[in-house]
Amino acid sequence: MALKELKENNKEQIEDTVKDIKIAYIGGGSQGWAKRLMSDLALESKISGTVALYDINFKAALDNEKVGNLLSKHPDVKGKWHYQAVQTIQEALQGADFVIISILPGSFQAMGSDVHQPEKYGIYQSVGDTAGPGGLMRACRTIPIYADIANHIKALAPNAWVINYTNPMSLCTRTLYEIFPEIKAFGCCHEVFHTQELLAHMVTDLLEIEVKSRKEIKINVLGINHFTWINRASYKNIDLMPLYQTFVDKYYEEGYEIKKGAWRESVFESCNRVKFDLFKRYGLIAAAGDRHLAEFMPPWYLKDPETVKAWKFRLTPVDFRIQDQQEKINKNQKLLSGEEQLEVRPSGEEGVEMILALLGMGDLVTNVNLPNQGQIAGLPLGSVVETNALIRKDSVLPVMAGQLPLDIHNMVQRHVYNQESVLQAALNKDKQLAFNAFINEPLVANISRYKAEKLFNEMIENTKDYLPGWDI
Amino acid sequence: MALKELKENNKEQIEDTVKDIKIAYIGGGSQGWAKRLMSDLALESKISGTVALYDINFKAALDNEKVGNLLSKHPDVKGKWHYQAVQTIQEALQGADFVIISILPGSFQAMGSDVHQPEKYGIYQSVGDTAGPGGLMRACRTIPIYADIANHIKALAPNAWVINYTNPMSLCTRTLYEIFPEIKAFGCCHEVFHTQELLAHMVTDLLEIEVKSRKEIKINVLGINHFTWINRASYKNIDLMPLYQTFVDKYYEEGYEIKKGAWRESVFESCNRVKFDLFKRYGLIAAAGDRHLAEFMPPWYLKDPETVKAWKFRLTPVDFRIQDQQEKINKNQKLLSGEEQLEVRPSGEEGVEMILALLGMGDLVTNVNLPNQGQIAGLPLGSVVETNALIRKDSVLPVMAGQLPLDIHNMVQRHVYNQESVLQAALNKDKQLAFNAFINEPLVANISRYKAEKLFNEMIENTKDYLPGWDI
Amino acid sequence: MALKELKENNKEQIEDTVKDIKIAYIGGGSQGWAKRLMSDLALESKISGTVALYDINFKAALDNEKVGNLLSKHPDVKGKWHYQAVQTIQEALQGADFVIISILPGSFQAMGSDVHQPEKYGIYQSVGDTAGPGGLMRACRTIPIYADIANHIKALAPNAWVINYTNPMSLCTRTLYEIFPEIKAFGCCHEVFHTQELLAHMVTDLLEIEVKSRKEIKINVLGINHFTWINRASYKNIDLMPLYQTFVDKYYEEGYEIKKGAWRESVFESCNRVKFDLFKRYGLIAAAGDRHLAEFMPPWYLKDPETVKAWKFRLTPVDFRIQDQQEKINKNQKLLSGEEQLEVRPSGEEGVEMILALLGMGDLVTNVNLPNQGQIAGLPLGSVVETNALIRKDSVLPVMAGQLPLDIHNMVQRHVYNQESVLQAALNKDKQLAFNAFINEPLVANISRYKAEKLFNEMIENTKDYLPGWDI
Amino acid sequence: MALKELKENNKEQIEDTVKDIKIAYIGGGSQGWAKRLMSDLALESKISGTVALYDINFKAALDNEKVGNLLSKHPDVKGKWHYQAVQTIQEALQGADFVIISILPGSFQAMGSDVHQPEKYGIYQSVGDTAGPGGLMRACRTIPIYADIANHIKALAPNAWVINYTNPMSLCTRTLYEIFPEIKAFGCCHEVFHTQELLAHMVTDLLEIEVKSRKEIKINVLGINHFTWINRASYKNIDLMPLYQTFVDKYYEEGYEIKKGAWRESVFESCNRVKFDLFKRYGLIAAAGDRHLAEFMPPWYLKDPETVKAWKFRLTPVDFRIQDQQEKINKNQKLLSGEEQLEVRPSGEEGVEMILALLGMGDLVTNVNLPNQGQIAGLPLGSVVETNALIRKDSVLPVMAGQLPLDIHNMVQRHVYNQESVLQAALNKDKQLAFNAFINEPLVANISRYKAEKLFNEMIENTKDYLPGWDI
Repeated sequence: MALKELKENNKEQIEDTVKDIKIAYIGGGSQGWAKRLMSDLALESKISGTVALYDINFKAALDNEKVGNLLSKHPDVKGKWHYQAVQTIQEALQGADFVIISILPGSFQAMGSDVHQPEKYGIYQSVGDTAGPGGLMRACRTIPIYADIANHIKALAPNAWVINYTNPMSLCTRTLYEIFPEIKAFGCCHEVFHTQELLAHMVTDLLEIEVKSRKEIKINVLGINHFTWINRASYKNIDLMPLYQTFVDKYYEEGYEIKKGAWRESVFESCNRVKFDLFKRYGLIAAAGDRHLAEFMPPWYLKDPETVKAWKFRLTPVDFRIQDQQEKINKNQKLLSGEEQLEVRPSGEEGVEMILALLGMGDLVTNVNLPNQGQIAGLPLGSVVETNALIRKDSVLPVMAGQLPLDIHNMVQRHVYNQESVLQAALNKDKQLAFNAFINEPLVANISRYKAEKLFNEMIENTKDYLPGWDI
Repeated sequence: MALKELKENNKEQIEDTVKDIKIAYIGGGSQGWAKRLMSDLALESKISGTVALYDINFKAALDNEKVGNLLSKHPDVKGKWHYQAVQTIQEALQGADFVIISILPGSFQAMGSDVHQPEKYGIYQSVGDTAGPGGLMRACRTIPIYADIANHIKALAPNAWVINYTNPMSLCTRTLYEIFPEIKAFGCCHEVFHTQELLAHMVTDLLEIEVKSRKEIKINVLGINHFTWINRASYKNIDLMPLYQTFVDKYYEEGYEIKKGAWRESVFESCNRVKFDLFKRYGLIAAAGDRHLAEFMPPWYLKDPETVKAWKFRLTPVDFRIQDQQEKINKNQKLLSGEEQLEVRPSGEEGVEMILALLGMGDLVTNVNLPNQGQIAGLPLGSVVETNALIRKDSVLPVMAGQLPLDIHNMVQRHVYNQESVLQAALNKDKQLAFNAFINEPLVANISRYKAEKLFNEMIENTKDYLPGWDI
Repeated sequence: MALKELKENNKEQIEDTVKDIKIAYIGGGSQGWAKRLMSDLALESKISGTVALYDINFKAALDNEKVGNLLSKHPDVKGKWHYQAVQTIQEALQGADFVIISILPGSFQAMGSDVHQPEKYGIYQSVGDTAGPGGLMRACRTIPIYADIANHIKALAPNAWVINYTNPMSLCTRTLYEIFPEIKAFGCCHEVFHTQELLAHMVTDLLEIEVKSRKEIKINVLGINHFTWINRASYKNIDLMPLYQTFVDKYYEEGYEIKKGAWRESVFESCNRVKFDLFKRYGLIAAAGDRHLAEFMPPWYLKDPETVKAWKFRLTPVDFRIQDQQEKINKNQKLLSGEEQLEVRPSGEEGVEMILALLGMGDLVTNVNLPNQGQIAGLPLGSVVETNALIRKDSVLPVMAGQLPLDIHNMVQRHVYNQESVLQAALNKDKQLAFNAFINEPLVANISRYKAEKLFNEMIENTKDYLPGWDI
Repeated sequence: MALKELKENNKEQIEDTVKDIKIAYIGGGSQGWAKRLMSDLALESKISGTVALYDINFKAALDNEKVGNLLSKHPDVKGKWHYQAVQTIQEALQGADFVIISILPGSFQAMGSDVHQPEKYGIYQSVGDTAGPGGLMRACRTIPIYADIANHIKALAPNAWVINYTNPMSLCTRTLYEIFPEIKAFGCCHEVFHTQELLAHMVTDLLEIEVKSRKEIKINVLGINHFTWINRASYKNIDLMPLYQTFVDKYYEEGYEIKKGAWRESVFESCNRVKFDLFKRYGLIAAAGDRHLAEFMPPWYLKDPETVKAWKFRLTPVDFRIQDQQEKINKNQKLLSGEEQLEVRPSGEEGVEMILALLGMGDLVTNVNLPNQGQIAGLPLGSVVETNALIRKDSVLPVMAGQLPLDIHNMVQRHVYNQESVLQAALNKDKQLAFNAFINEPLVANISRYKAEKLFNEMIENTKDYLPGWDI
């Protein structure tokens, strides 16, 4: 390259901005995540470009296109983006620098089977999207979709950075790498952030020190998504591990909430009693919401609705999901009609920060989901784990997280291998292997083999429209 | 070394015999295993020497000394050995070429707690010496004894070959290596042999071909002791895996016994229905007795005594053990008084063959328990696994066994990590870690956490005499 | 399968013979190796079938067909085989149970460049087919041929067992696995056998004990082909390692030959002085001929023809190869004309024994070349290493060989990574990478970089007909 | 802990300073490194405490005590530290929070043998402290000293963070971990920083963009100390790898210097021609000074003084070292007499920043030397490698650096195993193993074995006072 050209090409750099970025948004009709991204992009002045919105519900993508484009007309919006709904995934991916995936695999009806069918056998799930019988079924119908996406990315945007937000997080990310091993993908989840917030409040509660941001709580994270653990935590010069012991002792019985009483209002909230109990038994800080953690354990916390209540967290009925979705749609109508305006404020997600870091505009150390290259000792290489990573210009490098204690390691790897089994079962439509994983889920292991088989078959039957090619 | 001396030293070789071998027998007062060894040694003319019998019950060792020495007077006994009861383990180990360990850790009363206390909580165990609540408790009291033995071997017989027969096999062997990593030890178990015998009978049953010896059934073994699996089996040119499918189909319902009706007579017998069921679900041949296999699984086969009966195998009550022991003692009295004579016939064990191989008198390929150096892919290095090994002059080298299928791998490694937890718990007297392993046993996972805690504490209390230093 | 059918199908087994085997012989026009196989097959009564001879020189294959078929007419030939020359590799592979590969990649003229061009720069090679500049060039032209063979096997005989005899052994075998990872291939070489013979003679020389067969010398082998090491050796009860020390001390200066003076007659013979020198410096028994060993080391033994002579081994000029080939062709003419008869006697190779073992007719433990799965600790997984393996019905399982001492390990792995570089260079036609491996060969490292570049380019130029697609 | 106490204990935190830190400085009489630390500490207001200076030259430590304590009297010095010379290493370590090690192992006379004895055999070394014959000898006398230091740290300051500055860096750090595996140690070296500076100048040279600080050049580092490589480099949004290609093309012949002509003035400077040449051949950016890099390669750049000159770098004669030392001593006298004052300015080292990060006062990502836990794929676990790490409150966690290309990997690991051999040789006083590593050094491999032996023995003889217990 001639030097003159070199200088031209890098001129933009001098101004410290990057223009003409293309983001492909798979699931671009989403009500929640898409809005969060729009909001975060609007707040960031350094980057601009196009967001291609692809969704199997094209109408929803069109609506988001409208909402997104309205934004850049606001005078106080700093980040200028053009939103465009597209009819095919190919159009979305062509020329993309970044791909964001946030989809809902299957229908609410299928999710209803995931969450509520097991209740007929005494198996209660607080979320049903990651572990347990519901998580497994959801994975079985999501994996082929992700295999398909991976093939499209391989063909059309092999150098794009791919950020996944869909659950089951580990298996979605795992599938992308299984199909296209050179993919530059990682998975993001905010559960760990909430644990940092809890620790920030703990510092204030116990030491009367105000903590400016959860990011000041430095943690070492290791585990798998929604069953992640913290074995080192600090705030400035303060080691938070002994402090957490005091905190657990203080609040073990009543629990602790950042916003008092919130758990009675929202299915997403809890009093962290499950987290405290796990610390007492295993010695590390579990770094996900109680509703997620409970599903990875034997039915200690999910025995029945009364037990759940006693542990002060909530089940998430699918009715709630449907209603919540409707509210978001109504809200959207108001945005589209101009009756309301999209509120532009930080979402708390890190997607845009990550994009900046990947563009070379500031290092970021945060927790992500990536194939294990050894960042967690003893877990199988290639399985998707959650640890810190250093994000820089065109690279996401895991930080060595070390090893889990034997007892936690054993629980985590049982899920890791169950996930590997589900991956193979879903790709090969292997019902026997799927069932062997199903009956090995801690929430399922407690019912009789006969009942487990009956339940499994019913759940397969209920969702068979999403299991093409299976021998049902 | 001068050549002349060289020739002298190797002269014995020319005659193809080895004299003046010293075997240290820890647990030398044993009624069963010691007799089997005596019998096998008596049948082998190539080697001779001394067996030092050490036992915490010195009287029993003295009795065995007498029985053993009577043997060499028989004119038809080919292997001439001098038996000597010794009062200390040091005397036994001093100068030993081989060490055999076969002990009963704790009392029948302790074993009674292992096996029967859990029954009060609906947990039935068919053996209670390897997995399950009983196996774990037995391990907790055995590990410190083995740590002690390992230290003595390190000090007095670091170059001796050590053969372990005590259960829990994996953890006893694992402890020896944990304390003295350079030890030349391995564990032997006959369960796999019985599976070979079953396959030999299968060949006859299905193909009407007589099989001379179980050794003609060639197998690839992988797993952990008592939860071992066969993924390749052949008899001469015949692949036995598809044949086993036919066999299982034929006998799945009624089961198959080598000796018809034996399972009704003896607690050690079964109809192999558990084995057949595992094949149907997991596709490999489980290579241990049904009574052992059942304990590694959720309570599918051990739900209650009726279920056990339906699967056509037996629980082993400690009453039976006591009675069996008494019969052996009575028998011994007759041997000592001369009323009866020790019957000299092959025991079916391979200890003496192994000693020959280790002395350089013939290669042997057989299954042994050894620390994993990679012979089973994916299981943690250092954990004790069971695979084939090549035994030769002063070496026991594992044969690469490959990898278990995902679903079996997951079940096996859950036990592997539970065992590692028990090892650390027993060495560090860490009750919390012991309990975390306890509640993670598949047989325990089905009762409530509250009940599990209660049971655990009772079992600890019942056996506290054997748990010195624990904070009980 | 119906039981009746089962019995039918396995009837053959009862008679302990296997008929209708198909062996595909790639390089079936070979003068040497093909004859050896014919001879060994003729001596074995248990198996029979067809050998398809494929060679780019069809005429040579036709000649071998004739010679082979003459054999079965002899009344004293026990193994009845039909030989058939075929015109395409596809015909050969179709339906093959076994594939034997023994080819000469390129011409004598190319081999002349491999061996003699470096001499112009003061680099002498005793063989030039494995390591050194010649070995590397030979690899560059062989690897694409093997890639092609692998693709054919994948398509036509994916379940066949593939035995490789071609050099460079490690890289030929490595290429097969690189292209078709599920291939059931291994490489065989007799160099280790000769070291066993040497040890057998040592026993006789030092102890005056006659050893019946080299197979009675039990060894643990580890390394890479032609640079293999023995760290444990025994004959019956005798540890041969200290004996070898005495042997080396006795014969270090004059060397030791099984047949006195042979090294002066034949380029293939030596006095084992290189082997003895390596023992003195590194403590293990190098297990290949001196002419191979010398090429893996710095030019200690190959400085110039005088040095070679002083170490009492020989360079192998290509003239000799040409003359040797001509003699074999003449000999062949006599066989074809009936003037002479093929002498039927054991070749000393193990191919037929291996075939028997793979058919389930007797276990075999011997040294083979296989991808490293951990059988040698510390060498990269997947690289082709030489260790013992257990060969049984349809399986070849490496025996754990342990670890090389640090200093030998370092020398071995330098070649391992050079080989990996050559593999990638040859597959990707990457001249820079090929040169970086070339200049890292111990025999090349001693000349200046400038000269190395010149030599490299000349060797490439000389053999460019065999390097299609390279940017020359 | 009572909450009140908790708050008290963490009060200091609120003020964002840490007092009463104890730093033990082993080699505290050092002229260069000690002054740099004093200067950096003086510039940092957040931390304060005591520096215990231990040196086998107590007088030198006393002088540094004086110089250090003069500092805190200056009104513009922000960091207040008390310096105290101590007579024993025990006094220094007792209660230390941090340990800094920077020693000169052996005498200038010994260093003279390291550097100049090989010249008699045509082996030229530009530094002689890491690789090559000199580096090896220096390692042999340093390793026992480090073993001793490690034992003292284990006994007296097992929780302290240990920062090593002594060469040979990898082997000093490796020894600390060999002796005390739980040590919290890492090694620091500024060579990579200089490469960042070079890249910063490249950006200015080619793009006319001013780069504020070398820290804005983001790099991924992998290799071993002084033979480290960069496979990814960026400045903000600019990928520097293609730019470096242009840079190398532009300056390959004449070389590039930050300060024109400096290499003619100082032995420490070069024109980066070796670095450029390595890029042309291997494709990555070598990240150390040319004088270090050259010693890891065959004698391409160090053939003779003329070659060195042609490549535009310098040999470092020991005369220069002695003279340099004398100048520093003279300078010191002026400081002690008050004639001059220690100039307080940033040294360019990162020790103090690291201490801040370890205290929880700001994250730091930088390159350090640590045992490999997998941060570089394919290099042996436990060997000391150089990569980026994330430094935080009480933790230094390697960042996954990935894998080197095959050809570079091969060169690097040859040194890694040579270092492992030297470690074992030095600890076990194993002359044969030391020689086998010696002759495997690329700079030595080119002379005859006979000469190598002679040289080795002379170098051993010359430095035998520092090799106690060796059989010389």
